[in-house]
Amino acid sequence: MSLIKTEALAAALADFANEREWSQFHSPKNLVMALTGEVGELSEIFQWMTEAQSHAAGRDPQTAQHVREELADVLLYLVRLADVLNVDLNAAAIEKLAINAAKYPASKVRGSSEKYNAKKEKR
Amino acid sequence: MSLIKTEALAAALADFANEREWSQFHSPKNLVMALTGEVGELSEIFQWMTEAQSHAAGRDPQTAQHVREELADVLLYLVRLADVLNVDLNAAAIEKLAINAAKYPASKVRGSSEKYNAKKEKR
Amino acid sequence: MSLIKTEALAAALADFANEREWSQFHSPKNLVMALTGEVGELSEIFQWMTEAQSHAAGRDPQTAQHVREELADVLLYLVRLADVLNVDLNAAAIEKLAINAAKYPASKVRGSSEKYNAKKEKR
Amino acid sequence: MSLIKTEALAAALADFANEREWSQFHSPKNLVMALTGEVGELSEIFQWMTEAQSHAAGRDPQTAQHVREELADVLLYLVRLADVLNVDLNAAAIEKLAINAAKYPASKVRGSSEKYNAKKEKR
Repeated sequence: MSLIKTEALAAALADFANEREWSQFHSPKNLVMALTGEVGELSEIFQWMTEAQSHAAGRDPQTAQHVREELADVLLYLVRLADVLNVDLNAAAIEKLAINAAKYPASKVRGSSEKYNAKKEKR
Repeated sequence: MSLIKTEALAAALADFANEREWSQFHSPKNLVMALTGEVGELSEIFQWMTEAQSHAAGRDPQTAQHVREELADVLLYLVRLADVLNVDLNAAAIEKLAINAAKYPASKVRGSSEKYNAKKEKR
Repeated sequence: MSLIKTEALAAALADFANEREWSQFHSPKNLVMALTGEVGELSEIFQWMTEAQSHAAGRDPQTAQHVREELADVLLYLVRLADVLNVDLNAAAIEKLAINAAKYPASKVRGSSEKYNAKKEKR
Repeated sequence: MSLIKTEALAAALADFANEREWSQFHSPKNLVMALTGEVGELSEIFQWMTEAQSHAAGRDPQTAQHVREELADVLLYLVRLADVLNVDLNAAAIEKLAINAAKYPASKVRGSSEKYNAKKEKR
């Protein structure tokens, strides 16, 4: 099974930053902006695709590689951000899944993105 | 060691979506927009903080919990997006770390965010 | 004809911030994050819509009002950001239109979002 | 006084898209993603700057030109998006200013970004 070893990844990213004396730039605020930049690049890949085309984004090797790198960039900044904030991403994700399951009971929201959105807005 | 079991997480998210008949909404294009929304919420938490305040975001329990949930949301949509695109996030992150190490040699970029940015822009 | 009086709008926003002693928070960096937050909210409105549904977003009065407010928020932060950076948005937009016309000659890119994207990436 | 003639700008953008047969790509959903991409580029410019450096972003001519172009890109997509959604940006901005003035009375929020954020979250 494929695992993301977040602690190992976080340690590799900390080493990477320290070797380049970049830790000084890695405040949570700055890392959120860097994350924004990467999500913006991901958005640019998909912006003119139809939803059907987006499902097939992996077929063209050049697009697939581009997508793969941008997804990695988002993960790397996310892991780095969680690390400097001392958040255990794994535990946080498991907690959030439980919160979401309680917030969106299958019996009430089945098939409806409207209820999905409505619940989101009330948050 | 804390691990993110991406396959387990991806499977849990797929189940979650299927139970609610939400898979129909989870095209890669739509999931990129959902990711954008979550990063926007993260940005709103930090927008008026100084960098120093952002380092201390974990001290206030309410802010810490808010940050924790938004980080989790970003991870959940990222894992779901990678899953529908058949990208192995873990392998992609390791590859990207190697690409970055080659692109930003420590000896050339040490201490400089300008070179960091300049390299980024050329990409 | 409907005009955006940017200078009047920028002045109103500066007064608004000064009356609340919020100018201290309005660094360009912070305003870019605020802009990100607003675009994230706009993204959340449209994330689960099909493209066809997005064209009809104005038909439901509640959604129309929500969209209208988010578009306004994006404009307000953009005008404020341009103001603190001393950029004349109007002149910048006219310049950029000319740059785009030269970069994407109609005869070469007609009907193709791929060329559109390819050009973008080279930027 | 510098004016943004939104109707003239919207008309120029519609002509630009029609000449390139790009109107087919300009659904509101897609344009929100394009806006996200541009805000991401703006974010990348400022991500490693301190707030003080961000105030001086106009001093370096290359950075100033880059910022100017990205601000223009955000405005162009925003005007285009409002146009395809039939929203009068100017009227929407004036309405939103009034809403904000009522929501954030100067006497209650003076000098406090916390109340500013708290109010935002309740929205």
